[in-house]
Amino acid sequence: MSTTRRPGRPRGASGSRERIVAAAVDEFGEHGYDGATIRAIAARAGVDSALVHHYFGTKADLFAEVIGIPLRPDVDVPTILAGPREQIGENLVRYILEAFERPEVRRRGVMMIRVAVGSKLMSQPLVGFLSRELIGRIAAATDAPDAALRANLVASQMVGMLMTRYVLKLPAIADAPIEELVSRIGPTLQRYLCA
Amino acid sequence: MSTTRRPGRPRGASGSRERIVAAAVDEFGEHGYDGATIRAIAARAGVDSALVHHYFGTKADLFAEVIGIPLRPDVDVPTILAGPREQIGENLVRYILEAFERPEVRRRGVMMIRVAVGSKLMSQPLVGFLSRELIGRIAAATDAPDAALRANLVASQMVGMLMTRYVLKLPAIADAPIEELVSRIGPTLQRYLCA
Repeated sequence: MSTTRRPGRPRGASGSRERIVAAAVDEFGEHGYDGATIRAIAARAGVDSALVHHYFGTKADLFAEVIGIPLRPDVDVPTILAGPREQIGENLVRYILEAFERPEVRRRGVMMIRVAVGSKLMSQPLVGFLSRELIGRIAAATDAPDAALRANLVASQMVGMLMTRYVLKLPAIADAPIEELVSRIGPTLQRYLCA
Repeated sequence: MSTTRRPGRPRGASGSRERIVAAAVDEFGEHGYDGATIRAIAARAGVDSALVHHYFGTKADLFAEVIGIPLRPDVDVPTILAGPREQIGENLVRYILEAFERPEVRRRGVMMIRVAVGSKLMSQPLVGFLSRELIGRIAAATDAPDAALRANLVASQMVGMLMTRYVLKLPAIADAPIEELVSRIGPTLQRYLCA
């Protein structure tokens, strides 16, 4: 549940931390990522909004905590986008594959994909999170008038890559070395974003 | 259940047609697409293999009947692959999108994706069908030494396109006109296959 990966996060002994996480699960489940607010989560948990921020930081931090994926696209993706422009496609592919090679990311990531795809209700929180924290950030880094479509095309190939490698496990994709996929799929993302 | 789309298919009044379909559902469910045989399905249904062929044609026909998708990639994909080489990517995207715009294809296709992704057990029949009838045919039309990887990369983008447009419904993809996606994603498939 709780981790020690971000320093400076105090440990509540009062149970309010656990109440906040439980409230967040309910709030994200009912209203999706976009509809959920820190204020509403705090109200459900019977605590002040400031305490939620104090324990968990931003809404993205709290969602990552709730779904349990130790992955921070809201931090990492802007770093990639700020890097060498001609390597954005390859760096995005490498980033997501290296993350999913970590068992604790892959296990929960595959679970989230299965749950989100298996149920209409559950797809909304994941789609909201991806749209805001991944696709939205990629779109914001592109000044083309069709930035939203470009960023969503990137998402379509990333979703397909994760689906075929880790969920459906098509052998040619599942067994390919990371750098093989980086060199094959990287140019696709590069073209969607920059061509 | 039964349709009249292929002429010359006799209608059994004896119930053997229904028994064959039920046996096929069990057989595909237990052994997947590759593992299932017409012989085993016939044995389950208590009929002769020839009767299965007589009613349903090939294993691909029978699987299409079982999953209820009025779509024949085993016929249509080779036609596309035999067409103009420089248009294969765009023609594949247009083919799959035009198919999924038909409500009876989309409804069952989305159902199959949800079921296949939601359960490890159920993903095997769909993966087998796709591998044999779609990916395998695309690979066979490519004489590159890495034909299998190329065809699976095509599948990864197609799966991602269907997932983001019809299952997750990312607005920029879900609302895009077919020809917009043909012109954006077609070159990706073209590059995976022919570059």
